[in-house]
Amino acid sequence: MSQLSAKPPSGTRDFLPDEMQMREEVLATIKNIYSKNGFMPVDTPAFENIDVLTGKYGDEGDKLIFKILKRGEKEQTGEVDFALRYDLTVPFIRMYSKYHSELPKIFKRYQIGPVWRADRPGKGRYREFYQCDIDIMGSPTLLAEYEVISTLAEVLNTLGIKNFTIKLNSRALLFEWLEKCGIPEELKPQLLISFDKMDKIGLEGVAEEIKQYDLSDTQLESLMEVLSADQRDQALRDFMGASNALAEVDQVINYLKQDNLSLEFDPLLARGLDYYTGVIFEIFAEDFKGSIGSGGRADQLSGMFMKQPVPLVGGSLGIERVFLLLEEKYKQEIAVSEGYYITVWGEEATEGALKILYALRQKGMKAHIDMTGQKIKNQLKMASQLNCRYCVICGPAEKENNKVTLKDMDQGTQETLDLATFIS
Amino acid sequence: MSQLSAKPPSGTRDFLPDEMQMREEVLATIKNIYSKNGFMPVDTPAFENIDVLTGKYGDEGDKLIFKILKRGEKEQTGEVDFALRYDLTVPFIRMYSKYHSELPKIFKRYQIGPVWRADRPGKGRYREFYQCDIDIMGSPTLLAEYEVISTLAEVLNTLGIKNFTIKLNSRALLFEWLEKCGIPEELKPQLLISFDKMDKIGLEGVAEEIKQYDLSDTQLESLMEVLSADQRDQALRDFMGASNALAEVDQVINYLKQDNLSLEFDPLLARGLDYYTGVIFEIFAEDFKGSIGSGGRADQLSGMFMKQPVPLVGGSLGIERVFLLLEEKYKQEIAVSEGYYITVWGEEATEGALKILYALRQKGMKAHIDMTGQKIKNQLKMASQLNCRYCVICGPAEKENNKVTLKDMDQGTQETLDLATFIS
Repeated sequence: MSQLSAKPPSGTRDFLPDEMQMREEVLATIKNIYSKNGFMPVDTPAFENIDVLTGKYGDEGDKLIFKILKRGEKEQTGEVDFALRYDLTVPFIRMYSKYHSELPKIFKRYQIGPVWRADRPGKGRYREFYQCDIDIMGSPTLLAEYEVISTLAEVLNTLGIKNFTIKLNSRALLFEWLEKCGIPEELKPQLLISFDKMDKIGLEGVAEEIKQYDLSDTQLESLMEVLSADQRDQALRDFMGASNALAEVDQVINYLKQDNLSLEFDPLLARGLDYYTGVIFEIFAEDFKGSIGSGGRADQLSGMFMKQPVPLVGGSLGIERVFLLLEEKYKQEIAVSEGYYITVWGEEATEGALKILYALRQKGMKAHIDMTGQKIKNQLKMASQLNCRYCVICGPAEKENNKVTLKDMDQGTQETLDLATFIS
Repeated sequence: MSQLSAKPPSGTRDFLPDEMQMREEVLATIKNIYSKNGFMPVDTPAFENIDVLTGKYGDEGDKLIFKILKRGEKEQTGEVDFALRYDLTVPFIRMYSKYHSELPKIFKRYQIGPVWRADRPGKGRYREFYQCDIDIMGSPTLLAEYEVISTLAEVLNTLGIKNFTIKLNSRALLFEWLEKCGIPEELKPQLLISFDKMDKIGLEGVAEEIKQYDLSDTQLESLMEVLSADQRDQALRDFMGASNALAEVDQVINYLKQDNLSLEFDPLLARGLDYYTGVIFEIFAEDFKGSIGSGGRADQLSGMFMKQPVPLVGGSLGIERVFLLLEEKYKQEIAVSEGYYITVWGEEATEGALKILYALRQKGMKAHIDMTGQKIKNQLKMASQLNCRYCVICGPAEKENNKVTLKDMDQGTQETLDLATFIS
């Protein structure tokens, strides 16, 4: 056969053992915590009927959906029937709408898996990447917000990402505020997008963007009362007076205080997605651009598949970013040598070596057996390449006396033991 | 929005928590054993450049590949560039050919993940299903065969699938045998497919199939000497005399004996795939049709991407069949109630309840907090629906005395404890 390109498709990645081991360990930790906190795993197929996905992610999103060609005779027509999932949320809600009567009335789910977007590949931007979602369906209380945020924070703490801040706000509060400033309904979403850029482009940049909307002086002044304040959170409190939406944010922050987290009410935090209806949050790590987690309440979202929408509070870890943060940490740790490498002193020693291998593995030990079939020197090299702690040597001298030599690859020492003692 | 169909695409599945929990537990067990035995995890993308896959699975296979439409302007042309992976082997070898110089000279990998085939959906036949592969690259010794088979067997034993038999043969031996019977090269693969059906269609059926090939009487007689024997293994030994290929099968069986496995040399075992070159095996479970594991040596296979093919011994668990077998087992086990359900005695009791929740979780306990916001009776119902072992009740009376009531949902008993004692 001809030699084909060995590269994976542009924008996708192969994972070699070092990286894969890290990813597996991190995901196992996350699943443990999700599960301990009462979230249950679900999964949906990699692809959906195409109608399930189109129209859910805006015009730009639609263009980024990978579409699958029909098979058989229809292949020639260029027609598509399926499409790779673009996120985990829409497929989950499709699934929930089908099974909700079989599920607990308040249903806490987690789902971890790849999604696909036909973005132009770039640094840190992939066409296949993992998402890591939790959602609580059916709870009207603010304890749902606590549960989601507290659980994501516990994950980050457990993974050793200590310096993160959780910024909170409320989508409802943002709309109340704009209402009070006399902003017309249709302008609200666009203004929120501008406000959200405050950290990047500063007050002047935001003011510049706002000008294009032909607001009246009164409207502009009202907005600026909060936007230009040194303490925006206090300015918003003063401006709003009694507000149910504000009380909600405060209550969630209050609940979360006992978790010893760094919490911040940020009146400009907007989150891009229009479907949020209540408290929203984003998690930021020190020395890292962009958020590593986010979510909020989206009580109408399930309306896309259900006549009676079910209250929903969701959260998501930016898991690929978390992997990036941890990769640095893992690299700094020196790999610990572990396990046994059973050398094989020629054909006739193989069965004896296998007995030792089997005995170690039955005891739950990590153990390799030599498969190079080469001389002992090369076998030791292989052991060292595999980062094994001990080499087990059972040469003719050892065999005769029912002994075994154990070589400590870290210390460079070795000792000879009774075979029976060693095995037990 | 209009109400869309809530079904997943035909031939694919949604996984609800019960099934998903079982699958996650089983996969975690498998990964532990693979890893203990020195196999390392790798992964490749869900889709490949289409040229990587086409032509690798025969004409029938090619038709079953899901193809992905090009994006942007090219979408209208019906052209495709990517395709969903059809198995894990071809993508792995593509990846190995790219990275082998960075990997250990003898490289033991495992890979677990979904693959996609556009088969007509049917009972137990899905278009998305998991594969669970191990492969050893670079070892010429029969210890590689031992490692693969022993590891798969250890997985099955650990999962509690006790009654399985491993049938072994050698593709090289099959060809030697047919050679000695004077069968022309081009007929060999087809004859092997017929022999492999012995269990299903019996000797008469096989004899019937063979007739269509216009074999001479001498050729037929030679074949029948083994085919019609009561003890086919012994008949083949007698017929072959000294044979290197036979000695290899015997040696692998000999190595595996210490593992206390049920082993059987089956001279008619053929495995469908043409790429095997040496020892082959299949694993059969009692009371279950079809094999639950298989593999063998395929020393030329990596030639599809490498000028110098690397020796390869691979094995695969029929993981979806294993899930099926275990599902029955899991269903028979009575679900054990576990963890705590913290009830919430109204708004003002919430913070106290959260303290208890947080303390339990910090100790690694599984704990829920009520999010119904309803009266205690309904909260207890929810606890029971979630199969919690204990309900924690902290009503006005308890609060006043710094006590907490613990209700054992299994026993129906309850006791009142000091809050501080309970938390610590």
